[in-house]
Amino acid sequence: MITALVDITVDFPILKRQINGHRLIYLDSAATSQKPQSVIDRLVQYYETTNANVLRSVHTLAEEATTAMEEAREKIARFIHAKSPREVIFTRGTTESLNTIARAWGDKFLEAGDEIVLSPMEHHSNLIPWQQLAKRVGAKLKFIELQPNGTITVEAVKQQITERTRIVTLSAVSNVLGTINPIAEVAVLAHQVGAIMVVDGAQSVPHGPTDVQALGIDFLAFSGHKMLGPTGIGVLWGKEALLEAADPVMFGGEMIAYVDRDDATWAELPAKFEGGTPHIAGAIGLGTAIDYLSTIGMERIEEHSRMLAEEAYRRLANLSDVVVYGPEYPRTSLVAFNIVGIHPHDIAQVFDSRGIAIRAGHHCAQPLMHWLDVSSTARASFYLYNSDRDIDELVDAIEATKRYFKR
Amino acid sequence: MITALVDITVDFPILKRQINGHRLIYLDSAATSQKPQSVIDRLVQYYETTNANVLRSVHTLAEEATTAMEEAREKIARFIHAKSPREVIFTRGTTESLNTIARAWGDKFLEAGDEIVLSPMEHHSNLIPWQQLAKRVGAKLKFIELQPNGTITVEAVKQQITERTRIVTLSAVSNVLGTINPIAEVAVLAHQVGAIMVVDGAQSVPHGPTDVQALGIDFLAFSGHKMLGPTGIGVLWGKEALLEAADPVMFGGEMIAYVDRDDATWAELPAKFEGGTPHIAGAIGLGTAIDYLSTIGMERIEEHSRMLAEEAYRRLANLSDVVVYGPEYPRTSLVAFNIVGIHPHDIAQVFDSRGIAIRAGHHCAQPLMHWLDVSSTARASFYLYNSDRDIDELVDAIEATKRYFKR
Repeated sequence: MITALVDITVDFPILKRQINGHRLIYLDSAATSQKPQSVIDRLVQYYETTNANVLRSVHTLAEEATTAMEEAREKIARFIHAKSPREVIFTRGTTESLNTIARAWGDKFLEAGDEIVLSPMEHHSNLIPWQQLAKRVGAKLKFIELQPNGTITVEAVKQQITERTRIVTLSAVSNVLGTINPIAEVAVLAHQVGAIMVVDGAQSVPHGPTDVQALGIDFLAFSGHKMLGPTGIGVLWGKEALLEAADPVMFGGEMIAYVDRDDATWAELPAKFEGGTPHIAGAIGLGTAIDYLSTIGMERIEEHSRMLAEEAYRRLANLSDVVVYGPEYPRTSLVAFNIVGIHPHDIAQVFDSRGIAIRAGHHCAQPLMHWLDVSSTARASFYLYNSDRDIDELVDAIEATKRYFKR
Repeated sequence: MITALVDITVDFPILKRQINGHRLIYLDSAATSQKPQSVIDRLVQYYETTNANVLRSVHTLAEEATTAMEEAREKIARFIHAKSPREVIFTRGTTESLNTIARAWGDKFLEAGDEIVLSPMEHHSNLIPWQQLAKRVGAKLKFIELQPNGTITVEAVKQQITERTRIVTLSAVSNVLGTINPIAEVAVLAHQVGAIMVVDGAQSVPHGPTDVQALGIDFLAFSGHKMLGPTGIGVLWGKEALLEAADPVMFGGEMIAYVDRDDATWAELPAKFEGGTPHIAGAIGLGTAIDYLSTIGMERIEEHSRMLAEEAYRRLANLSDVVVYGPEYPRTSLVAFNIVGIHPHDIAQVFDSRGIAIRAGHHCAQPLMHWLDVSSTARASFYLYNSDRDIDELVDAIEATKRYFKR
């Protein structure tokens, strides 16, 4: 039995909702997670008692808001085992974080003929910024060949890395396949040729312990809204020396040291990369989300997400006319599938009529869809509020969908 | 008598706070505004009932969240008289909006030798993006000469505009001087030479009606958090044809049409400029802020902000050893000042001991500080929850500060 790690009726108000006459069964956490009461309450508390712009003013509210935001930054630093909070940059989310790395480090250090190694399972947010960087500087993208079950071997990575490789970038967990990629091993290969290792942690950071130092990586991008935090907040972590070497890309208030009419010098980290008023409430709310996750324990969450994903895969793989994607084991947090002859959007609509929220589409991973030779899939994704009862519902809904479309 | 436009004890919970034994008097709205209960409640309602990722999924929650966000976009379009919601791009705030224009339009259409006309009163967010654009393409910045009282004349703008001018960019209201700039007239001059007119509306959009079509401008940037909205959300408005012509700068999910391994094509507006999961709750909350502002009426707010700024200027100008900056009339929403021989940070600290929140510093406008020949100023800024009682407190606090430092 796989039970939810939290009392959903107490901690997650939205999960009390009825959808089309059924209790909401939320299986779309890979798109965005739901929020515990403590995170919602923290946002309210911020706006009702502390709201002020940070850094800029010396009055009490401004000092309280600044302290609260910087405490959140310190929590995040500890959560991912950063060496220092200076390495933690607030962004809107994974997408902005990855775009920032591509411009801030890539535009400065890549030259024509340099190579960027990545995989065909990347989300568009970890693909298009590199395509565009490659166009700007004349670099070349090289794609790691996937195994038939959608996994990446260290050997396959080796085949793409050359002396011209400057960047290796990989999602730690695929948002379609549920694949868990060998980040630490690939980072070693990258460093052997002097390349940097960039990790898209959007689907991994919410689902298990993250130790950037143990992984030996150089940059990590992730989103708050996928890990119980508010929308509009995310993190770019980078090794301090790399962030120091890179150029800022968002120019404005508080990221400067000295400005005259024709030029400017930059502030110290992390301010250098945080031009403009940050999403203060979002940063503080993400800190509260991390408190909540940490109280449950990221090891427990990791085990839970893996058990749900593996159990769902096994049960769906046994259904007739159902195709599941990615490896049976190990996998985490989600399962993508198709029902033969039924469009994923139709699947999602039948599911919705039963109160079950899943995603259908290309999942912002069109090259992977090409590799899978499908135009789209359905995807059920799990988090700490899901249990194997939700997998029962998933299986029942698939059978109902087949009946509905008479397969 | 200038009375607050709202019942602050009902609508703005933070204004019930005591600071150092005094009722909070918040005079820092130019840095960030406080939030009405309706905006806070809307965020809670969103997270407790509707939270889902937008656009990506077909289930009920996702459709509700998408509808709510797009309704907010439509409200914003109406609020600024945009021709279409397609012209409204969600960003983190004014800073990101201005940076986006500089990269998306500037990098594509400017060439070496082209000129960018702006003023020495610009906030760093409307200066450094253009400095950096100028460096990237070999363009030149040209600065409008200010009148002694810190205003801009059409004649002074004419002197800087040439056949090489491609961009004219100006704050509609100065965040230090309170100056109201002649945007519509300058836009005509810009268009006469084929340049585009960019407006930093951070300090203007919260304080009066905005009609982008009547102004005849091409791009407008503003922030939600300065107009009663949540942190982390802002707007880039651009004429549809210009947004169509410009290149996207934030690459990732939902801003694409078709993606293969080596290239991608872009989605229609506004998605083309909104790569990655947006700040959904923030956008919806900003819509609620606009509802609140609209109920009061932007004309009333404009009159209120001008009356407070002019009254404060007049009263401070009459105090001994007090220097005020910018024009006496017309001005809006704020007054910057110094007390001879007392550092602005010391002023702010004495004020804070009396429960009064003001800002002290260079206000992200170092070139303007050079022009004023000061290193920093104090600044009191007003909004619809302020009244002339707050100006009384401001005056009393200045006198107390002078006594404290024995001037």
